[in-house]
Amino acid sequence: MTLDLTENRLSTSEADLNHVVEAQDLLDKVGQTATVDGAVLNIRGMKWGGFIVLRTATSTIQVVVSSEQMSLFKKGDFVTVTGEVKSKRSTTSIPEVEISCGEVKVLSSSQAEPTFDVGGLNLTASQSTVLDERLLSLRNPTERAIFQVQAEIARTFREFLMRQRFTEIFSPKIVGGNAEGGANVFGLDYFGTPAFLAQSPQFYKQFMVPVHGRVFEVGPVFRAEASRTSRHLTTYTSMDLEMGPISGFRDVMQMEAAMLLHIITSVRKNCAEAFDFLKKGGVLQQDLPDLSSGIPQVRFADAKRMVADRFGKQSSDDDDLEPEDERLISQAVLEKTGSDFAFVTHYPWAKRPFYTKRDPDDQTVTKSFDLLFRGIEITSGGQRINDYSEQVQAMRDKGLDSSDFEHFLRLHQLGTPPHGGLGLGLERLTMQLTGVSNVKRATLFPRDTTRLNP
Amino acid sequence: MTLDLTENRLSTSEADLNHVVEAQDLLDKVGQTATVDGAVLNIRGMKWGGFIVLRTATSTIQVVVSSEQMSLFKKGDFVTVTGEVKSKRSTTSIPEVEISCGEVKVLSSSQAEPTFDVGGLNLTASQSTVLDERLLSLRNPTERAIFQVQAEIARTFREFLMRQRFTEIFSPKIVGGNAEGGANVFGLDYFGTPAFLAQSPQFYKQFMVPVHGRVFEVGPVFRAEASRTSRHLTTYTSMDLEMGPISGFRDVMQMEAAMLLHIITSVRKNCAEAFDFLKKGGVLQQDLPDLSSGIPQVRFADAKRMVADRFGKQSSDDDDLEPEDERLISQAVLEKTGSDFAFVTHYPWAKRPFYTKRDPDDQTVTKSFDLLFRGIEITSGGQRINDYSEQVQAMRDKGLDSSDFEHFLRLHQLGTPPHGGLGLGLERLTMQLTGVSNVKRATLFPRDTTRLNP
Repeated sequence: MTLDLTENRLSTSEADLNHVVEAQDLLDKVGQTATVDGAVLNIRGMKWGGFIVLRTATSTIQVVVSSEQMSLFKKGDFVTVTGEVKSKRSTTSIPEVEISCGEVKVLSSSQAEPTFDVGGLNLTASQSTVLDERLLSLRNPTERAIFQVQAEIARTFREFLMRQRFTEIFSPKIVGGNAEGGANVFGLDYFGTPAFLAQSPQFYKQFMVPVHGRVFEVGPVFRAEASRTSRHLTTYTSMDLEMGPISGFRDVMQMEAAMLLHIITSVRKNCAEAFDFLKKGGVLQQDLPDLSSGIPQVRFADAKRMVADRFGKQSSDDDDLEPEDERLISQAVLEKTGSDFAFVTHYPWAKRPFYTKRDPDDQTVTKSFDLLFRGIEITSGGQRINDYSEQVQAMRDKGLDSSDFEHFLRLHQLGTPPHGGLGLGLERLTMQLTGVSNVKRATLFPRDTTRLNP
Repeated sequence: MTLDLTENRLSTSEADLNHVVEAQDLLDKVGQTATVDGAVLNIRGMKWGGFIVLRTATSTIQVVVSSEQMSLFKKGDFVTVTGEVKSKRSTTSIPEVEISCGEVKVLSSSQAEPTFDVGGLNLTASQSTVLDERLLSLRNPTERAIFQVQAEIARTFREFLMRQRFTEIFSPKIVGGNAEGGANVFGLDYFGTPAFLAQSPQFYKQFMVPVHGRVFEVGPVFRAEASRTSRHLTTYTSMDLEMGPISGFRDVMQMEAAMLLHIITSVRKNCAEAFDFLKKGGVLQQDLPDLSSGIPQVRFADAKRMVADRFGKQSSDDDDLEPEDERLISQAVLEKTGSDFAFVTHYPWAKRPFYTKRDPDDQTVTKSFDLLFRGIEITSGGQRINDYSEQVQAMRDKGLDSSDFEHFLRLHQLGTPPHGGLGLGLERLTMQLTGVSNVKRATLFPRDTTRLNP
């Protein structure tokens, strides 16, 4: 046979790849010819022709079109345009770059009349329409900007932690036991055995502390909660970390504080265009938070008292915070310190999971914390019990049968150093940084009790 | 109330964090005092005292201990040791760095006699024991090394794609329809509605091409396959990408080729210590593959003929490759070209999914490919149908009812440019790069038909 494989090879050179051309690449190519791909977002006809706004992969570009060419452009089509790059427009306009239309190639055409217009700076359709028509609504540059920020949050979360010598792990999402003992768990049939979708990677990240010391995971978690609020999803992306040895739970808080500074500094720098859309589209009405002077911390009991003193609000549950409490604590901390973030520490043992370390000075409270950001809890974390007898006793105190936790307790039998960690909701952090008012808008394809599609 | 929140702040400065001290940090601190955390991996007694090998977060360090201190060390304990850094040992020895033992602090103690010893360069226990006792076996530095390589693969996959202007997405893992029409799907009850675990992010990444152009996702996928082979898992981590516009499916192959070069170059450089363990432990018996001269490509039909010519093997199925075929194709390509990788292209339409683009020159084959690496398929990919009528017809040809795919077809109705993508199994790539013979060993906590724990 004459098949010549030696000649028939695909290059592995990155230089041979086709590169995406973006507005930012054109800024220093004025007067040169360039080819850009994009979707026709808006068409503005003039006597002499018109302007087409192309939505490119991460930005927008204006195309100057002659009257003969105008008929080639239809809203929603994907096209390739080749032409001369014109001078930079004002930095306050969107888009910032202009190209004159030479050749046009239509790559695909829309078959359907869109339910609503995505060419504006924001979407005027109702939220349920926006979510029902997700394939359309995400084609709006402002709606899309939310997810450009989200991708950067995830990237910088990992970047920071790898710099701090965390190792990424991939833990199973189908688990054998109802691991954390919660009621809100999705069950499934696993080859004839009952199994569950993991509510968090909690046990697995604890398992990995004696292996890698510091670990993180960014992955889906599943909560069969019937809650229909603006901040609940039945499945979301949890950014988890776990670290050991630690000298106390403040090591974990400090890691989060420095990590958040890194994330927010990075999104400010790398998502400038996305934030421009979010601000001009009226979604984001606040500046990004300033973390340079640290994050205030307040004990749970003190926070309760602070809210009672400041707002006269008496809590209905001494051991837990209602969403309204979280909002008021945030407000009070902001008034007192100017900080958009607040750590609330020492949550009551009654409301924290069985693996939470109790405070030896006061066994009714735990070495745990939540982080509030502009009124919403975005993180729960704390130190975990690492001693075997202490963990068995804690299960007993919670009314749990330690024999149901054989796999988990193997960790404590084999030995594990003092450790702790946290979970940070990617969608909630995205929501608070982009200004959207419902966490579903900070989720590409959200799931709630009635929403399973698209 | 006198609560002073202004004073009570946690620093957000990265400089204030406790840093993990590793062997590599000590190499240039000879003669200085250092503190390291680790687990006692091995103890070797001498007349004058002994040597302790500490397993640190990513490496190992040797501690020189006096006879009085020897009793402080117990295998499996986590300890903190402070002492003087001694000169570097030979580069061929593991560990490379030595510290003399000054102070010792025991952080945690093992309560259980381990089922097997993890102090050796490899594990001698049977595979099922190694997987049953996963919390123990991962404490072996060679077993752990597999996952240090895995984390670096995931990191560099993302790094390369972000450089090529891909945007990370997070797609739902619970889906409303049995999206890809497969039989091997896990079902669950979703608040009274039947739902399924996503077998891949296929539809969602296609949905995102018109939004971001190029997208990727690293996440779990679920396959209810009863296969009990050395390369199947019921859930694994899929590294997916999708890109558009493309000029053809070779754009996707070329992206993968350059990406693999980047991944392999990076793991070679950044996982040198891990590969040292894998080689000395006898797990990895080959060098890392050389990708510098490209990846050969061969059409499916030619590959079949090549195997028949070279090995006299007649295939039992003209339209598909058996694992044995894949092994023999790899072997033939290696013999002919020296390449450990081989692209097999133009798979028969009969065996590819309904969204696969057919070759206009020969409608019986598709614009698709698999990538074989040392005998195993690690990637499936190809161009997708982007035209609405063509997609509806393709469904009809596959005997599918297009009304079952209303959400998917919305993509084609709204318009989407020519696009394609691929899925790369993280565990399979890890297996082939580290030399482990079963994909379960390349999974932290593997799942198969009978394994749900730990």
